[in-house]
Amino acid sequence: MNILSENTAFGGMQAVFSHDSTACGCEMTFAVFVPPQATKEPCPVVWYLSGLTCTHANVMEKGEYRRLAAELGLIIVCPDTSPRGKDIPDELTNWQLGQGAGFYIDATEAPWSANFRMYTYITEELPALVAENFRADMSRQAIFGHSMGGHGAMTIALKNPERFKSCSAFAPIVSPMTSDWSIGALEQYLGKDQSQWRQYDACALVEDGARFPEFLIDQGKADGFLENGLKPWMFEDAVKGTDIALTLRMHERYDHSYYFISTFMDDHLRWHATRLG
Amino acid sequence: MNILSENTAFGGMQAVFSHDSTACGCEMTFAVFVPPQATKEPCPVVWYLSGLTCTHANVMEKGEYRRLAAELGLIIVCPDTSPRGKDIPDELTNWQLGQGAGFYIDATEAPWSANFRMYTYITEELPALVAENFRADMSRQAIFGHSMGGHGAMTIALKNPERFKSCSAFAPIVSPMTSDWSIGALEQYLGKDQSQWRQYDACALVEDGARFPEFLIDQGKADGFLENGLKPWMFEDAVKGTDIALTLRMHERYDHSYYFISTFMDDHLRWHATRLG
Repeated sequence: MNILSENTAFGGMQAVFSHDSTACGCEMTFAVFVPPQATKEPCPVVWYLSGLTCTHANVMEKGEYRRLAAELGLIIVCPDTSPRGKDIPDELTNWQLGQGAGFYIDATEAPWSANFRMYTYITEELPALVAENFRADMSRQAIFGHSMGGHGAMTIALKNPERFKSCSAFAPIVSPMTSDWSIGALEQYLGKDQSQWRQYDACALVEDGARFPEFLIDQGKADGFLENGLKPWMFEDAVKGTDIALTLRMHERYDHSYYFISTFMDDHLRWHATRLG
Repeated sequence: MNILSENTAFGGMQAVFSHDSTACGCEMTFAVFVPPQATKEPCPVVWYLSGLTCTHANVMEKGEYRRLAAELGLIIVCPDTSPRGKDIPDELTNWQLGQGAGFYIDATEAPWSANFRMYTYITEELPALVAENFRADMSRQAIFGHSMGGHGAMTIALKNPERFKSCSAFAPIVSPMTSDWSIGALEQYLGKDQSQWRQYDACALVEDGARFPEFLIDQGKADGFLENGLKPWMFEDAVKGTDIALTLRMHERYDHSYYFISTFMDDHLRWHATRLG
């Protein structure tokens, strides 16, 4: 791992690292906040997955998570949203595909399949790196995210319920199979057979029997992507009649920005801290 | 005023405006956070002045002031650091002069004197605009800032003690007359006669009899600019034997970044709120 930056903040350390990723076949960058408690004892790990067009830096700069993470003793890991670099496939005119739009899936179709393996990267490679390099209690992990990253957090939790104590999301894409934002990308990454898409769709996963005890979702009612991209009511429908508990909060006047995320960041960190014990 | 953006945050509104500035002879941009309390009653106004190279946006995105400002009912105004635009003088290869480096002075020398009138802009034009357009209690104002903006806050408070209830600074340039960062700019803006510089130097102002009841200064000991640019001990010396109270806190491991600012933002907002009543 290369240290790209280290800044003391709230008694802890906000750092950015790069490393050669086997899963993605390129150099990957990620941010980690290590709380002051980690000098004394292993701390639980909270994964934050970002949305379309973001890198590790957006939430690091605008997410306002450090004050409470330092108080609660949480390590916060913020990965990038896709492989990147001049040798990595991309479509420069389409922000919903390629670099910045990894959708937390393992692509099976050329030219994406060699590098767009964010599911493996987030669930296998990066956890191993975190466990090795930080004073992390990997028996206590939580996951959350925003928009495309909310989709990532929810699908990864549903597929790995034994690993995560809690999951939450800000304005998640709950059904990428039916969202304007993601249909094009899923077809490119996974091919035309939609049965292959279901493993990366929170609603379809629940329909197919995947379970996670409870979810917290915050959603702004002034979010311009609500009707065509996000549609949290689809997940509300999906969990009906299951033992999945959903706390869905709809907020008047809030949009899709980090102003919305930072406003409810404290609630999400407390949600996770309570369940991480 | 043109509304450039409006985002709901922490129950209030973070907005960005532009307007034609008479003082600076160009279009100027500034950010305002209006807390939820302003829907019911006029709220006190806290001015945040930013450092070299910054615009209104840096602290708006990274300063983490909204949560507590919303709780305490403070309007936060974040101006730009200089006039800007293709018709405004600049030195592209020098970040310590010209656009992004207004130093909160009124320039007297060509070519700067037509536009670089940030002192008048911050103390006259923008307060009038704020009073006219927001539910602001202008009898309760405070001022703080970072680096060059800490210099701006301290000199403006010392020159206008009747207007401000409190003043604080993160890593301020306390003596721009002797700082590597600012000597070149002062010479360009104000000419070679250093007696003209003293009105814009916190230490010289105190020597010359200016008074403000008390200052809070936070300074990181790992700040790379500490020895040659900031030198807070000079202000400590300047206030010795006066009735000015100085709380100077030196922090191990903290640098000059917004990670430092955001860490101590709550302390500064509480400092101001207490004195604003």
